[in-house]
Amino acid sequence: MEKVDVLIIGGSAAGLVAGITARRHYKDAKITVVRKEKEGQVLVPCGLPYIFGTLGAPEKNIMPDALLSGTNIDLIVDEVTSIEREAKTVTTATGKSIGYEKLVLATGAAPIIIPIPGRDLENVFSAIKDVDYLNRLLKALDGVKEVAIIGGGFIGLEFGDEFKKRGLNTTIVEMLPHCLQLVFDEDFCVLAEDKLRERGVVVKTNAQAEAILGEKKVEGLKLSTGEELKTDMVFMGVGVRPNTDLAQKAGLQIGETRAIWVDEYSRTSDKDIFAIGDCAEKRSFFTKKPSALRLASIACNEARIAGANLFALKRRSEGVIGSFATIIGDLGLGEAGLTEAGARAAGFDFVTAEVKTPDKHPGSLPGAKELRMKLVFEKASHEILGGEVCGGSTVGEVVNILAALIQNRMTANEVATFQYGTHPFFTPSPIPYPIANAAEVALAKL
Amino acid sequence: MEKVDVLIIGGSAAGLVAGITARRHYKDAKITVVRKEKEGQVLVPCGLPYIFGTLGAPEKNIMPDALLSGTNIDLIVDEVTSIEREAKTVTTATGKSIGYEKLVLATGAAPIIIPIPGRDLENVFSAIKDVDYLNRLLKALDGVKEVAIIGGGFIGLEFGDEFKKRGLNTTIVEMLPHCLQLVFDEDFCVLAEDKLRERGVVVKTNAQAEAILGEKKVEGLKLSTGEELKTDMVFMGVGVRPNTDLAQKAGLQIGETRAIWVDEYSRTSDKDIFAIGDCAEKRSFFTKKPSALRLASIACNEARIAGANLFALKRRSEGVIGSFATIIGDLGLGEAGLTEAGARAAGFDFVTAEVKTPDKHPGSLPGAKELRMKLVFEKASHEILGGEVCGGSTVGEVVNILAALIQNRMTANEVATFQYGTHPFFTPSPIPYPIANAAEVALAKL
Repeated sequence: MEKVDVLIIGGSAAGLVAGITARRHYKDAKITVVRKEKEGQVLVPCGLPYIFGTLGAPEKNIMPDALLSGTNIDLIVDEVTSIEREAKTVTTATGKSIGYEKLVLATGAAPIIIPIPGRDLENVFSAIKDVDYLNRLLKALDGVKEVAIIGGGFIGLEFGDEFKKRGLNTTIVEMLPHCLQLVFDEDFCVLAEDKLRERGVVVKTNAQAEAILGEKKVEGLKLSTGEELKTDMVFMGVGVRPNTDLAQKAGLQIGETRAIWVDEYSRTSDKDIFAIGDCAEKRSFFTKKPSALRLASIACNEARIAGANLFALKRRSEGVIGSFATIIGDLGLGEAGLTEAGARAAGFDFVTAEVKTPDKHPGSLPGAKELRMKLVFEKASHEILGGEVCGGSTVGEVVNILAALIQNRMTANEVATFQYGTHPFFTPSPIPYPIANAAEVALAKL
Repeated sequence: MEKVDVLIIGGSAAGLVAGITARRHYKDAKITVVRKEKEGQVLVPCGLPYIFGTLGAPEKNIMPDALLSGTNIDLIVDEVTSIEREAKTVTTATGKSIGYEKLVLATGAAPIIIPIPGRDLENVFSAIKDVDYLNRLLKALDGVKEVAIIGGGFIGLEFGDEFKKRGLNTTIVEMLPHCLQLVFDEDFCVLAEDKLRERGVVVKTNAQAEAILGEKKVEGLKLSTGEELKTDMVFMGVGVRPNTDLAQKAGLQIGETRAIWVDEYSRTSDKDIFAIGDCAEKRSFFTKKPSALRLASIACNEARIAGANLFALKRRSEGVIGSFATIIGDLGLGEAGLTEAGARAAGFDFVTAEVKTPDKHPGSLPGAKELRMKLVFEKASHEILGGEVCGGSTVGEVVNILAALIQNRMTANEVATFQYGTHPFFTPSPIPYPIANAAEVALAKL
């Protein structure tokens, strides 16, 4: 029987980074990754929507296997079917048995299929990370004119925007009063919805999908409002559920969010087994309570924690901040930490400050877009709790500045004197630079 | 005689932000700004180069006077000619006398004119922040074909790149072995020089300007290499000297860098007089020694410190980090903190780590550019000392992430688990995200 020091189950973002990190911290360890996807078939998770408009094919959205080259990590394409914790072995679908010293579960999550009538009809799809499946979706798109998307979160909106780029008549159906409502405050949700509508996407909120209609293929979608949409395809983007079957069968503790329970060192209830990424439970940086956030960036962060901790505890998670961005047309939207609604729900006493400024300076420079920013500060500590941003192509990295300020628990006074740099083509003016400016506005209320 | 609580001399970035900040922190103070520029004639300092290619006119690079609207700050267009510290008054060119409780000097800096023969010839220009002067330069450009730029720093390169956009034959003359050598490591300087040459700009390094040739107008430039360039115009971009005449006449202490000495609260040797921006001395965040860095963003930061400190000490400068970016063609270059050369010169024992990755993910997305990053970490403390970045349009805000990490003195281990977010269109992949990745590479050497 083969025996390795580190066995990683799952070859997507979390598994890959766990392997690379383990190698960096444990030079002589024998490390093996077992994954289901064949060579050159691991998809870039966040790139899925862009296969259907911008990129044109799943094959253009592949994680290079070369990322593992030079790391001396073995790759086995197979499926682990059980973990024998006493024996410290796993068994695979092909009957292989592999012994491990430390095991890392990076089994990911799968799209939720809501159990409504018609869910098994032809032309019902979701964001399944599988090249063959996505090629079937791509082919099916050629035969349809109308697409209805169930779910107005990131996945729903990004797929919707890309479907529109292909010229399809696209309708997004969201059960809450606003799209993106779980991640942005209402004012930012409205900016996203306005942009979608401006681009010709139909947005129906306060509307729940009740049944997918049709004989063999999709022909329509019945909503809780009584309306029946005529549509040739239904795409479900209503979130994911963690893949925990293996862990559950092995008797590992499952957490409140139905993900694998882990401590702040990324260890499961078995101290020789780590869990990271979408399959692992997260805790909030702010409340230390379980969090339902699932992002590839969080998965990689956890992989860097687990990979370093395998044989000695070197890193501890302070909980997830949650930093992310999305794009609709040419509108960028991003968020780090808690929104106003999130801070309220968590029970914080807080103030907010909102500012606007062009994202280049002077604002007359070609391509300048308005950058809108809202920051949230806690009243008692004056610490920054979060920020939302709307603007152009710099939104993603601006969110990351906010993440750095939050991670360091900077106070409004410290944020007001944050030592940013500026350049006419790349940033807002140094005078109303939005982060410092919003902190000053907040200070006046603290 | 008029008497005010806060008198600010200078209406550019520093003076403006000092006024706004003073108002935010001292609601009832009577605040007046005295500046030389008439209404609608304060230029955006960092925008000067872009007047000559991208924007087309100085009038398109004006700071809106509306920034002062609603602040209840009085504006006087006049020139202060002396400060009477005992009486706590200033006298202006029009004979006005104004009393002050607190005085803020934001008198800026002026371009250095190197004292070589021919410097008074027609068609010798520099980056003087004056609308009429810049309009004369703009008009003069219409009559020339060849421009020689003395100085390969930011100003020289940015003006050179814009002159090239107008179709002029442009030569940059730099006395050091590389352009930008005072702010970037050699490998990054070479990227800038290669891009300039690719765009058809002639770059001559190790070459000092010895004389400007010509009868009435510029006809040539003689170099220390013996070469005589044929040219119709000479533009000097060799740095600035702080405007300290007023301060010196008033007997205020002048610092080692020939700027007005200030303490960490932005106070001069007279505790009722503050100095900020290009006229004020800076100290390094890393060594606490005097620093020659002069940036509009630093000026605004100092203005936020001084403006808050006028009647009570609320903020203290930890010294300047120095965060900046520039663009050549479509190549963005940026830096925060110390370069490798800077860390060596300051006497630090350090390691560096360099990584490369596309700035979008997957790298096949349209418009993706390579992002190159070098980080510097101190050996003893493991703290991040600085970082250089080369890439596309996100470089300016990526530098600001680095500034935030530096300001919080994060260690390599902390930087490796920095909670960034990612998006295909806006950032590199979460897997090789360059900040975390470079920190891991550095850790292996620490």
